[in-house]
Amino acid sequence: MIKQNTDVTRDLSAAFLNDIDQIIGLSNLKQGDAVANLDYGVTAANLGATAVAFPSSTQDVAAIIKSAFAHGISIVPQGGRTGLVGGSISMPGQIVLSTARLNGTVEIYPIERVAVVEAGVTLQALQAAASEHHLEPGIDLPSRGSATIGGMVSTNAGGISAFRYGVMRHRVLGLEVVLPDGSIFSDLTRVVKNAAGYDLKHLFIGAEGTLGIVTKVAIKLEPVPAATATALFGLPCVEAALEATRLGLNAQYGQMRAAEAIWNSFFALTAGEHRWSATDYSPDYPVNLILSLGGGNEEQLQMELGRIYEELYETYPGISAVVATSRAQEAELWRLREDTDLIYRRHPAAPSFDVSVPLSQIDEYIARCIPELRSIDPAFDPYLFGHIADGNLHIVLNVSGADLIPDKAAAVESVLYRDLTQSGGSFSAEHGIGSKRIHSLRETADPVKFALMTQIKSAMDGARTLNPGKVIG
Amino acid sequence: MIKQNTDVTRDLSAAFLNDIDQIIGLSNLKQGDAVANLDYGVTAANLGATAVAFPSSTQDVAAIIKSAFAHGISIVPQGGRTGLVGGSISMPGQIVLSTARLNGTVEIYPIERVAVVEAGVTLQALQAAASEHHLEPGIDLPSRGSATIGGMVSTNAGGISAFRYGVMRHRVLGLEVVLPDGSIFSDLTRVVKNAAGYDLKHLFIGAEGTLGIVTKVAIKLEPVPAATATALFGLPCVEAALEATRLGLNAQYGQMRAAEAIWNSFFALTAGEHRWSATDYSPDYPVNLILSLGGGNEEQLQMELGRIYEELYETYPGISAVVATSRAQEAELWRLREDTDLIYRRHPAAPSFDVSVPLSQIDEYIARCIPELRSIDPAFDPYLFGHIADGNLHIVLNVSGADLIPDKAAAVESVLYRDLTQSGGSFSAEHGIGSKRIHSLRETADPVKFALMTQIKSAMDGARTLNPGKVIG
Repeated sequence: MIKQNTDVTRDLSAAFLNDIDQIIGLSNLKQGDAVANLDYGVTAANLGATAVAFPSSTQDVAAIIKSAFAHGISIVPQGGRTGLVGGSISMPGQIVLSTARLNGTVEIYPIERVAVVEAGVTLQALQAAASEHHLEPGIDLPSRGSATIGGMVSTNAGGISAFRYGVMRHRVLGLEVVLPDGSIFSDLTRVVKNAAGYDLKHLFIGAEGTLGIVTKVAIKLEPVPAATATALFGLPCVEAALEATRLGLNAQYGQMRAAEAIWNSFFALTAGEHRWSATDYSPDYPVNLILSLGGGNEEQLQMELGRIYEELYETYPGISAVVATSRAQEAELWRLREDTDLIYRRHPAAPSFDVSVPLSQIDEYIARCIPELRSIDPAFDPYLFGHIADGNLHIVLNVSGADLIPDKAAAVESVLYRDLTQSGGSFSAEHGIGSKRIHSLRETADPVKFALMTQIKSAMDGARTLNPGKVIG
Repeated sequence: MIKQNTDVTRDLSAAFLNDIDQIIGLSNLKQGDAVANLDYGVTAANLGATAVAFPSSTQDVAAIIKSAFAHGISIVPQGGRTGLVGGSISMPGQIVLSTARLNGTVEIYPIERVAVVEAGVTLQALQAAASEHHLEPGIDLPSRGSATIGGMVSTNAGGISAFRYGVMRHRVLGLEVVLPDGSIFSDLTRVVKNAAGYDLKHLFIGAEGTLGIVTKVAIKLEPVPAATATALFGLPCVEAALEATRLGLNAQYGQMRAAEAIWNSFFALTAGEHRWSATDYSPDYPVNLILSLGGGNEEQLQMELGRIYEELYETYPGISAVVATSRAQEAELWRLREDTDLIYRRHPAAPSFDVSVPLSQIDEYIARCIPELRSIDPAFDPYLFGHIADGNLHIVLNVSGADLIPDKAAAVESVLYRDLTQSGGSFSAEHGIGSKRIHSLRETADPVKFALMTQIKSAMDGARTLNPGKVIG
């Protein structure tokens, strides 16, 4: 990798390097070995580019894009490099534009419950700034420490609160974006109601940097509840988990903050590794559900969880439940859901899928897919977990990525993605398209929609300066 | 009007009429006197067109658009004709495409909390269907009986719940749209998480029918709370109303459903006309605030409103409050806010404005605008009311529309819209652009954004078949 980078550095012309020097100084353009020394994030392929530029202002981003366009060089924007579908991979001859230095601005407007931040600010940094005012961004991800707000906008990030607060698209009030021609699109409204013409910021949300580079974001915040309470339910079926979710949404005291389902093979893995157990809680239920409430008073929230348990028990007498009675116990329950690293340690680069299934079809979907996967390979026993209140399932195969031959990989996709778009779901719930899922998008998208996507990309970035080879190819 | 329509009917060629006959039958194309007999809605200018077509399926809509495109005829789509900014006005030579017969489908998916409806279904019809499952669309408007879901999508409707559930854009999960070339864009997902390529449905939401005609909508529903409680607060200032709103958002029991502010000249009008009064409630407060909570138990919600009053009283000892103790009393309080017809009866076609102001600037905005309006005309005493939790203010001048000379109208706009976009607000919060607000959009929009809007309109509808003269001209 280092050798390759050193070689192709020569591809960047002296004229282009001179431009970059004028704009950000060559000290802010990493080349050769300096690239190899950067943290590549999820995959080394992220840093395949000849150079990595670190602008520190919107104007610098605009100037770099103008110069790249003029010199026929394409740009791969990168935030926290936490994406899972190859949306940030780069090749020799390209330059990476990192938003790492676009992190100076974190303005909190407490009365408005709005934050305005630069794209390179991490979710964790925003959470910390907001929490000083008892506010939170209404979106949370395990990769909060490295995921940037710009990246989360560009991938339309989801997470555990989407059933209540929506996905990133629903959190964004305003955007500043540098377009492929270097002009600056400035629409930094801080209000939710704005019916002043086409709302074009939505073109850039979820476009993975192919239509523009997000530089600044106005984002809606929500009040942090004074207290939370969390329970784990052991349930006989998906239907029971959906009913528990419904009861959580209709809570008489407090508001539901999370409904995370853990099917039993993944539960066995995390509970086993962390030696978690609780009196009277059998680890053998088909579905385990973490239900969290937020509200004014911890005790009353715990009582409300008890009430939900009792109501659920009337319909499903076999169920079991444990309520966390301390922050430490709450964290232990969450670890059973969030420690997905355990899978990848056991099965490096395990093939993972991220689908949205309309809630009324989840049961049927799983009942169809598991035997079909086993008919591809009897050893398949996928880990299954997800955000059940919005139908977002994560499915990870219990094999190493290197061990899955292409034919089987294609067969797995065809099982998991079959009819999903037609039935109102999505084959990519929150991970995006990147470079890895383009073929699936082509196969499943409405042809009229796909043609319109292509038309818009051509109209806005005919020269394919921004993130070529991603989303639509 | 009748005479004019009769004359220009001849403009529709025999070939085009033959097409329409083939597609929907001429009985579903109203011409001449039959047009004049239709209900024109907010303004007679809505029915200036030569003919009004009533398709009953998406395929019919597509076929009509294809034929209109081939014959160089432009189409004005119409839903409930309740728009306030001339987004549906039509002219001789054009045809109106009414969605009135696209109202057969109202599918409710109770487990998913999703509805799929045709564009011509009214909000009230959707509310009725959803309420059978204890669900609601999360959006409500006084014009619910005539406003259609298609029209609400096309204008990105707002209303009283936007601070909590977002505007129409945030409610829509999927769309089916007929494009200007007659092709059918089908993206009827029923899940909130979908990161499968550009989310192009947002192009059509709020585009007022200039980029496509919405034919079907998948919309998110929310649980209806078991009980509600409503209070009216009399407050000394905007700051107190914002603090009450904050306390409502942080309610320890229940969830805030509405925070509607009524400034005193409008309050005097509605309270006076409806002879509303309550013991110990002085009608002379600068700002009156309706605060509604929803939750499990009415008594506890009323106690929570009492708690909010007490907490507010500590900071603002002069305040007053009344809590509704019956549905009838609740309705009486709401009438004080919703009976805006009283204004228009007193001042026909009174000039009305609809701005979004970032919450931290509302006080300052009003303090600046009122004296500036009075310096234009000392008789100006505008009616002021709005959705204070999201900064959406409605401002209606106390003059008849016919009495406001153009110079003064321009001066009023320049006072009300000055710096609004730059400071993070919007000069059109929820009414849209239509034909009346195009000049303001041109004056206030980011030029890069406006250029991109124009580029997209040209790319998608170069022949300007759909709703010409609206939004971008």
